[in-house]
Amino acid sequence: MARETAQAAVALGGGHGLAATLSALRRLNDDLTIDDLTAVVTVADNGGSSGRLRGEFGVLPPGDLRMALAALCGDDEWGRTWAEVVQHRFAGQGELNGHVVGNLLIVGLWELMGGDHVRGLDWVGRLLGAHGRVLPMATTPMDITARVRGADPSDPGALTVVRGQVEVATTAGQIESVALVPEDPQACAEAVEAVLAAEWVVLGPGSWFSSVIPHLMVPGLRRALAETPGRLVVVLNLEAQAGETTGFGPEEHLAALFEHAPDLNVHAVLVDAGSLAGEREALEKAVADRGARLVVEDIAVRGEPRHDPDRLAAAFRRIVDGA
Amino acid sequence: MARETAQAAVALGGGHGLAATLSALRRLNDDLTIDDLTAVVTVADNGGSSGRLRGEFGVLPPGDLRMALAALCGDDEWGRTWAEVVQHRFAGQGELNGHVVGNLLIVGLWELMGGDHVRGLDWVGRLLGAHGRVLPMATTPMDITARVRGADPSDPGALTVVRGQVEVATTAGQIESVALVPEDPQACAEAVEAVLAAEWVVLGPGSWFSSVIPHLMVPGLRRALAETPGRLVVVLNLEAQAGETTGFGPEEHLAALFEHAPDLNVHAVLVDAGSLAGEREALEKAVADRGARLVVEDIAVRGEPRHDPDRLAAAFRRIVDGA
Repeated sequence: MARETAQAAVALGGGHGLAATLSALRRLNDDLTIDDLTAVVTVADNGGSSGRLRGEFGVLPPGDLRMALAALCGDDEWGRTWAEVVQHRFAGQGELNGHVVGNLLIVGLWELMGGDHVRGLDWVGRLLGAHGRVLPMATTPMDITARVRGADPSDPGALTVVRGQVEVATTAGQIESVALVPEDPQACAEAVEAVLAAEWVVLGPGSWFSSVIPHLMVPGLRRALAETPGRLVVVLNLEAQAGETTGFGPEEHLAALFEHAPDLNVHAVLVDAGSLAGEREALEKAVADRGARLVVEDIAVRGEPRHDPDRLAAAFRRIVDGA
Repeated sequence: MARETAQAAVALGGGHGLAATLSALRRLNDDLTIDDLTAVVTVADNGGSSGRLRGEFGVLPPGDLRMALAALCGDDEWGRTWAEVVQHRFAGQGELNGHVVGNLLIVGLWELMGGDHVRGLDWVGRLLGAHGRVLPMATTPMDITARVRGADPSDPGALTVVRGQVEVATTAGQIESVALVPEDPQACAEAVEAVLAAEWVVLGPGSWFSSVIPHLMVPGLRRALAETPGRLVVVLNLEAQAGETTGFGPEEHLAALFEHAPDLNVHAVLVDAGSLAGEREALEKAVADRGARLVVEDIAVRGEPRHDPDRLAAAFRRIVDGA
């Protein structure tokens, strides 16, 4: 059901979590609830094909950008084929092994277009017929660092600093906080504009410390998130992620977010009913304390720890319609 | 000026020579003289990015196919941009150095589509909005071999066999003949069909022994070239190519072609006026002896040894209109 006036939405995150949000929001774009969709993507990855390209060319890591573009492809033959092509990972035995077609295409466009990241991504979006725009959160490569308690099992009380998205996501210790190096990367101007112009801003789900919270550590983007008149919806993860958020329930996820951005003004927190496990009251209180409302919905694929795009879309629709 | 009934054309060759023909024929496609354009491309390259991909994945060398696709791109923003993107060569210092974006895209599609070369190329053509279809001459990789006289300067009379497109194209000796290994590669069925259905078939210009004559060495394709009711136009090179055709004038080029395919039924031989250097009479006789007609036109870029697409297009138009 389309609203009388369609609205703009921005989704921030990275990896599979952002792809799930985008797949859902694309459905709201299809039915004209949302007429303008922008993805803002973490660009701190240092592993795999992205890490190799970053090392070879000094560019932004393209992997999460590519995944967001694929998620915005249409559900027709053109969109499905190109989504598969850009997501295809080379299986040879040589120098290309592990590289992903879309990553190479994006880096090629960046080289050709003199490092104009946004223009290169817009051209890939045109190729794919993407139902929205994909932007990096910042225009210079960066690393994530984490203060980690007990990374060394023989000294569980010790606090160490871990550097690199891969290292943060797989640490054996408990993450206390994350930061970026450099501390103040240049926010992507188009991403800032999109956040300020949006009626809806969606943060999460995704790797909490390495894909979601980093957006709040880019000063320009964080200011935009604090100042936007748009309504901010936080989508919590379905479960803890081994390494990064071991032992975290919904409340701990939310607490970590607010520790990194106490000034964040949240409209709604969306959580999967099945992930609550009896702690609804405490979460409800934590959400109400921030002036937000808790939305509990069935948004997971049954029996699997991943969001279902159709259910997530239905939940977003109810949030938008109830606003 | 469009004919009442537009016609199908097939151009066979490889590399820059084929790209020149295709750029010209695309103009005849724009004005509807030709309504159906197919490129059939040599796939014996063993050097550069193509050679590396062939080694890593066991696929056809994509480079000449990519160059043909780029030549068929439209002269609008979309076509010009994607032509540049697929032709872009990575300039980094690492494992991707020297690879070309379009080669990687083509090989990615082939991997994804289970080695269906034609389907993969058709999808790249759709992406580019290519004004025609690009097909390989055969669907299995092969090597070119050449019998070369005097490859070793210390023994100028000795006959040796040189293997590999790169090695053939740069031999220090005089090529006497070329062959393929394996001898009877499987012709691409769609290429055979296109030749048999075409009103016009254009062979050359291009690296004579390593890009043009190899088409005649694929048995299925050669049969189609002999049997097609289409009119065969041979476009001669503008000058000899150091290594491959050192010392060759137009007559020697033509003689080499007929030595490899005595049964070829040629309608016209197109030669640049500036490349004739007074030997017009001998060439005219050689062409007439084969029942063909010699067409002498200004088809080179002034002062440069390459074909001018507009002039070549004008020459093709006159040949088609005069038929």
